Amino acid sequence: MIPSELRKDPLSQRWVIIAAERAKRPSDFDSDAASEPPVFDPFAPGNEDKTPPEIASYRRPGTFPNKPGWHIRVVPNKYPALQIECALEKRGEGIYDSMKGVGAHEVIIDTPEGAQSFTGSKDEHVQDILWMYRDRLVDLSRDKRMKYGMLFKNVGRAAGATVYHSHSQLIVSPIVPHHVEEKLSACKNFYEYRGRCLLCDIALQELEQKSRLVLDSGQFIAFEPYAARTPFETWIVPKNHAAHFESLTQPLCEELAYILKRTLAKIEKGLKNTAYNYMIFTAPFHAGDLAHFHWHIEIVPRLTRQAGFEWGTGFYINPVPPEDAAEFLRGVKI
Amino acid sequence: MIPSELRKDPLSQRWVIIAAERAKRPSDFDSDAASEPPVFDPFAPGNEDKTPPEIASYRRPGTFPNKPGWHIRVVPNKYPALQIECALEKRGEGIYDSMKGVGAHEVIIDTPEGAQSFTGSKDEHVQDILWMYRDRLVDLSRDKRMKYGMLFKNVGRAAGATVYHSHSQLIVSPIVPHHVEEKLSACKNFYEYRGRCLLCDIALQELEQKSRLVLDSGQFIAFEPYAARTPFETWIVPKNHAAHFESLTQPLCEELAYILKRTLAKIEKGLKNTAYNYMIFTAPFHAGDLAHFHWHIEIVPRLTRQAGFEWGTGFYINPVPPEDAAEFLRGVKI
Repeated sequence: MIPSELRKDPLSQRWVIIAAERAKRPSDFDSDAASEPPVFDPFAPGNEDKTPPEIASYRRPGTFPNKPGWHIRVVPNKYPALQIECALEKRGEGIYDSMKGVGAHEVIIDTPEGAQSFTGSKDEHVQDILWMYRDRLVDLSRDKRMKYGMLFKNVGRAAGATVYHSHSQLIVSPIVPHHVEEKLSACKNFYEYRGRCLLCDIALQELEQKSRLVLDSGQFIAFEPYAARTPFETWIVPKNHAAHFESLTQPLCEELAYILKRTLAKIEKGLKNTAYNYMIFTAPFHAGDLAHFHWHIEIVPRLTRQAGFEWGTGFYINPVPPEDAAEFLRGVKI
Repeated sequence: MIPSELRKDPLSQRWVIIAAERAKRPSDFDSDAASEPPVFDPFAPGNEDKTPPEIASYRRPGTFPNKPGWHIRVVPNKYPALQIECALEKRGEGIYDSMKGVGAHEVIIDTPEGAQSFTGSKDEHVQDILWMYRDRLVDLSRDKRMKYGMLFKNVGRAAGATVYHSHSQLIVSPIVPHHVEEKLSACKNFYEYRGRCLLCDIALQELEQKSRLVLDSGQFIAFEPYAARTPFETWIVPKNHAAHFESLTQPLCEELAYILKRTLAKIEKGLKNTAYNYMIFTAPFHAGDLAHFHWHIEIVPRLTRQAGFEWGTGFYINPVPPEDAAEFLRGVKI
């Protein structure tokens, strides 16, 4: 395998992963790959030998790794953006900076069913998916070279999915990504100025205003953010402060499964199976129990296309006011 | 019309345009609108009454506004993200900030032909398009409420085009957009540290290394940036320092038309008419002749889809090394 390379753009100060290995994916520059159930499903039980050997699984007692019997299975990404087996090697090239693409890129096959999402699964199953997310973050955070773990899920082709079968991904990187740094810094500034956590304050205001609220499960709220970038962008935030997703307890995990599944089901049903992404924002691995950062989930339906203006400016145009989106989603019966 | 609203996300510190008016566009949440020549072309000569009245045009002597005879025509966007006729009205809503969506959103119909791009036009015509860009920036920069003008073009549905007929857009906003602020700040830091303009240095290094160079026209270079976010991302940079696109002289404009048309033609031919965007990055209107900022054009082919990871982290995965992309584009005969 060609190791990938991290390069920094001096203008935007962002890192990019140049992952030549991934160009081999047949579906890279196309296609209708992930919009319909495939003829061959590499993530189906019985096809365990079509993925790299598993890293972890939850399976029936008495069944064996890389054989059927699992209900959640984690494997390395076959076309990894980052790989664990190399040294960091930071270097310069004139005015440019680069480092080797060390990190991890795992696929969490989150159901044995050939479905596109897990909203048809039982609550207990969704709870197991979330618990596996937690397991993988805890495991990978032990590698001291690693700074950040980003858990995300792409559902549908327009959201970047290249395999139909429902799966999540985890990319662990040796840098804290740009958008996460931005959030950390804004939250820190707010904390220094107000003495409170920004997302704790946001949760309180959303509960009080109610106009952007979608669901309230007791310990969590799902709401449309005030400055939603896209129609029906939805966040799930725990009411009580916690910096790390990994700090989730079993009872909280149970409730998170409940609200996440119902929120996604409303989006899928209300928006006629639109493609969507979700991302879990948590504190960097070794940041400790930050008083200013609050983990949360962002769900982004992909109804609109990012055009040149958004790409160039980072300034989004959203044609649906979040208050209207919330009213609509509250009304979707699931 | 419902005036749009600018809202700031306290976590990412970005402004979003909530433009409820735009939701009326029939093609908002779909579709194949811009991938094929339409049955009815609202931008064709003879259909001038199907757009709002023109703001400017280059036309044959003796012909009249809003009638045929033009070869470049500027009209207000029928579904504007921002509008000129309102006051700024900054206000707070608990912890959130908003302001009225004051600004301008213009469409530059850049050819009377029903083509999807202008690469089939003569060089002199492309020069006129660029000169009209300049005219509009100069005109709108007189409004003191306005801070920034972003010129961009979406070609193809995957790039966000909703009308097939070749056109560019200009959005003028009362804030400097986030990505532009980031670039300004990185360029300023570099200038303070090194005493030189970052893009002047980049141009020199690209000319020396040659591996990422696509075209060199004398006064301009087209190259693949070192940390390209997407396959075949290409930048066009003037070799001599200039902060503002509007400072373009006629001879430079002629040469820019030459290199822009040829670079786009290579991308269109080499990548089989992929969708793409380009954006012109220039200094903010009233910033003066900045020694640290250097205007440039970024061209972004839309071969890959932005997935959850990129969206969440701002950390792009590019499967094609820029050196390979440059070699490929150099080889495309046009």
